[in-house]
Amino acid sequence: MNPFSDEKIVDSWSKNITPWIRAINNNEIESRIGVTNRAILKEVINRKPKNVLDIGCGEGWLVHLLTEKGINTLGIDVTEQFISYAKKYRKGKYMLLSYKQLEEGLNGQLFDLIICNFSLIGKNSVNKMFKSISSLLNKRGSFIIQTLHPLLVNSENYVDGWREGSWQGFDKEFVDPAPWYFRTLSSWSSLFNANQLQLSSISEPKDENNNLASIIFVGTHNN
Amino acid sequence: MNPFSDEKIVDSWSKNITPWIRAINNNEIESRIGVTNRAILKEVINRKPKNVLDIGCGEGWLVHLLTEKGINTLGIDVTEQFISYAKKYRKGKYMLLSYKQLEEGLNGQLFDLIICNFSLIGKNSVNKMFKSISSLLNKRGSFIIQTLHPLLVNSENYVDGWREGSWQGFDKEFVDPAPWYFRTLSSWSSLFNANQLQLSSISEPKDENNNLASIIFVGTHNN
Repeated sequence: MNPFSDEKIVDSWSKNITPWIRAINNNEIESRIGVTNRAILKEVINRKPKNVLDIGCGEGWLVHLLTEKGINTLGIDVTEQFISYAKKYRKGKYMLLSYKQLEEGLNGQLFDLIICNFSLIGKNSVNKMFKSISSLLNKRGSFIIQTLHPLLVNSENYVDGWREGSWQGFDKEFVDPAPWYFRTLSSWSSLFNANQLQLSSISEPKDENNNLASIIFVGTHNN
Repeated sequence: MNPFSDEKIVDSWSKNITPWIRAINNNEIESRIGVTNRAILKEVINRKPKNVLDIGCGEGWLVHLLTEKGINTLGIDVTEQFISYAKKYRKGKYMLLSYKQLEEGLNGQLFDLIICNFSLIGKNSVNKMFKSISSLLNKRGSFIIQTLHPLLVNSENYVDGWREGSWQGFDKEFVDPAPWYFRTLSSWSSLFNANQLQLSSISEPKDENNNLASIIFVGTHNN
């Protein structure tokens, strides 16, 4: 398997399901993701959506919270163990679906809001998925992406391309970190504009020390 | 005079007209601005505008080049010495006008393209000017801003606010550097979206060493 490929991302994640779910449930990574979790929740809640699609939902924490707030939320993920865990222990609806199967798998359902919370780390799978988004959104619907801030992670080698992954800061149960495809700020903006999505907001959550924690892009369906 | 104010910016620039024009004409700052000059020219030419407004045109190098290419270009600046120099030595049309006087001063003229090339360094004057832009653009017209890349200049203190200026790298004829108002990436994007401008492109010019040189935002009139 190509160590820098969309397939390798899925393969690496499949080896880390158990420690990941443990870490989420024990709040072991609260300090890492507390800020970004609150930030994505705020973006979603502020828009008062009736129904939401969470692409790459993992073990389902966000789908669960939104469902508890009365928002009709569907989580999809390509990893079978995540979906079976979420169906068993989390509120909300879940479906096993790869990014490539979006349109056929969702069978004409439309959403007020589509979220990708740190789940767009591939190359071709992401490019292809972006093409489907506007056909899955209601009129004036929005697509929200939270991801690593491009300037923070790569000011030295600021060019699109595959990067090695890392489990730095996690314990030794985490193995074989997934590679990820770095995109510059201008590449992210091009993905929106090339796919009928108006880049209607960029926000930059900060941690308690006033350091940038992530970037959140919001694209609004043009029509 | 408040050392951190829009008025102080104009005052500081008025003291540096002569060395600035000398530096431009002698290509003394080619290494600093060669990349960014080419970048803004490319953005403009690619859009094939029939008429262009250059806000904060300085001594007029860009108006001159666009006029030579057959594009009907008007340069405005608040500094009298720049405008009188440009009228005497540069091709193109020029008008002495402050950012506050845009709408009344231009008297109903509409433009395919409006450019601000490193000329948005104030606070209130910029906020007010942004409100005028969409009323000065033709249908599907664009507003192009080139400025310092927010993440490069201020990753330590990443919050909107006044900053001290500097003539670092220039010779000792340059005095009393103008202060400038720093804006984060998300603040820039909000300025577009709050003023009927769709952020349709973000580009990030690089120098010959592959280091980021600037950022260029393009806003397109919504209607």
